Amino acid sequence: MSNKKEKRILTGDRPTGKLHLGHYVGSLQNRVELQDEYNTFLIIADVQALTTNFDQPDKLSEDVRQVDRDYLAAGIDPEKTTIFVQSLVPEIAELTVFYSMIVTVNQLRHNPTIKSEAEQYGYKEMSYGFLGYPVSQAADITFCRANLVPVGEDQIPHIEQTRKIVRKFNNMYGEVFPEPEALISDFPRLMGLDGKNKMSKSLNNAIYLSDSRDEVAQKIMQAKTDPARIHKDDLGHPEVCTVYHYHKAFNLEESDEIAEKCRAGTIGCVACKKRLTEKLNAFLDPMRERRKKYLKNPELVDQILMEGTAKAREEAAETMKMVRKVMKIDYFNN
Amino acid sequence: MSNKKEKRILTGDRPTGKLHLGHYVGSLQNRVELQDEYNTFLIIADVQALTTNFDQPDKLSEDVRQVDRDYLAAGIDPEKTTIFVQSLVPEIAELTVFYSMIVTVNQLRHNPTIKSEAEQYGYKEMSYGFLGYPVSQAADITFCRANLVPVGEDQIPHIEQTRKIVRKFNNMYGEVFPEPEALISDFPRLMGLDGKNKMSKSLNNAIYLSDSRDEVAQKIMQAKTDPARIHKDDLGHPEVCTVYHYHKAFNLEESDEIAEKCRAGTIGCVACKKRLTEKLNAFLDPMRERRKKYLKNPELVDQILMEGTAKAREEAAETMKMVRKVMKIDYFNN
Ligand code: SF4
Ligand code: SF4
Repeated sequence: MSNKKEKRILTGDRPTGKLHLGHYVGSLQNRVELQDEYNTFLIIADVQALTTNFDQPDKLSEDVRQVDRDYLAAGIDPEKTTIFVQSLVPEIAELTVFYSMIVTVNQLRHNPTIKSEAEQYGYKEMSYGFLGYPVSQAADITFCRANLVPVGEDQIPHIEQTRKIVRKFNNMYGEVFPEPEALISDFPRLMGLDGKNKMSKSLNNAIYLSDSRDEVAQKIMQAKTDPARIHKDDLGHPEVCTVYHYHKAFNLEESDEIAEKCRAGTIGCVACKKRLTEKLNAFLDPMRERRKKYLKNPELVDQILMEGTAKAREEAAETMKMVRKVMKIDYFNN
Repeated sequence: MSNKKEKRILTGDRPTGKLHLGHYVGSLQNRVELQDEYNTFLIIADVQALTTNFDQPDKLSEDVRQVDRDYLAAGIDPEKTTIFVQSLVPEIAELTVFYSMIVTVNQLRHNPTIKSEAEQYGYKEMSYGFLGYPVSQAADITFCRANLVPVGEDQIPHIEQTRKIVRKFNNMYGEVFPEPEALISDFPRLMGLDGKNKMSKSLNNAIYLSDSRDEVAQKIMQAKTDPARIHKDDLGHPEVCTVYHYHKAFNLEESDEIAEKCRAGTIGCVACKKRLTEKLNAFLDPMRERRKKYLKNPELVDQILMEGTAKAREEAAETMKMVRKVMKIDYFNN
């Protein structure tokens, strides 16, 4: 374990608002576990958001704090995980500029993210920064010389691009960066309350980590169930029911029993939903408890971000020292 | 004059080796004059050179010092002009990243520099950084909130791109940057010793500011003259003679008399060249004198660069403070 602690993880999110149960299941839970084993860097990647929010100038600042609060509430421990803000680490911008010299436009156009964006909107109006997203992602990952990046199977090509950049840099100038590896962890996507789409803020089908007990109760009450169950004793099909889907995710121990009763028509949807609400609220209660502390002391949230950012910059300074040395641009430190 | 002193100029060069008389006539002389009137920032733009020199790792470091010595020898006064190294000002990279969000790929493809590079080599192998050259140029110019950029007529489109970026930034986020203006100064290009091409290092037809008295004498002796003058009293055509071209540039007061004598066949080429050599050496002597001091004390060259870079970073920090404020990413300074 002490060996692993030396390995660094880079992970993070764009600050786009409150985190929901889908985020928890999809990555947060994993991060909370990983922080005990690895030296974790958690980036709040605000730079890409700078142009989408410029018409609501205070939103980004609020979003950054929101995501930090959500992290802390979810159990990210600032003693174990370095939470930091991307735009406050200039070394990431420096690496982006250096890497942009060793990546061709053509390589970027073949990147899956860029390709699918271009197919949707065309290259014409794509911002130069967006075309360079894989480059800035490489800078995000490598500024702290990360060894591992927890991702889903579908994101492997992204990491591959970073590995290519790292290999090219190391070959051209000298060994500075470890080639980051994907730490693959495929979690099922959490369905939204509408029972049709994946849980997502924009579809308004999400249960947020910051929802109150009542909000959770109300949302579950309105969740899509098996349409065949009109009367209490109609035989149900749990596999098509959102509520059952959530039982499996957050109440695994009772889920078989619930499925059985649903199929037999011996449990009503209201009772089933109440049971889920209890379970979900019991699951969210410790987060609420932690969140309270941070809502009462907002300066604590800022302090954690500031300290994390300072720690990230220390690491970044170390990296840049090595980078400048191998690039021979440490002109005055020879 | 005191008003003008508040205006800032941004100018500079890529560190590609020794500066020659063509650089002096084309820009250095102008800079030496401008520094008395304006607050001048002189950038040694080393970032683009990082990929072209990686196989000769110590070259860049030597080139940076070489160009600094040439500046100082030519009369750039570090008390008046802030000489600094681009790669040591991370704020320029930060601005590059921010600007890259507000410039489309399409705008860059229509930029004249990018277009002509693409016509020559195609887009395929162009580096992402090269495509973004106009973006990083905007960052170079604006990091110190420059008002003026001394350029030739042909470079106006480059400044226009920076002005566009500045306008967009100011409109989106808030007024931070002055729209930099081109300070147009069209100097005739200095012909090389071959009498065919413009003076240039790569064509091996240059007289360097650092050439010794003997080197200058030898180079002038080999300079291309009027081929019609084989015998001392052949009638000459000074307008086709490189030596006469240099007389006009560095010995204007005697140039009419020389042209007359050449046409009349009353001055020999050797005498004419000797006269030019005397003049050129008298012109270069004060530079040699200044250079001696810096060659004897190389730590002085480094110190000037370090102090200039520190001063540039102070200005850059001021700029970034304003930038972060209007972009609302000064999260912890509110
Ligand atoms: S009983 Fe539960 S699992 Fe069955 S349909 Fe109703 S809510 Fe869904
Ligand atoms: S006399 Fe002077 S100007 Fe005339 S051809 Fe000779 S070198 Fe040139």
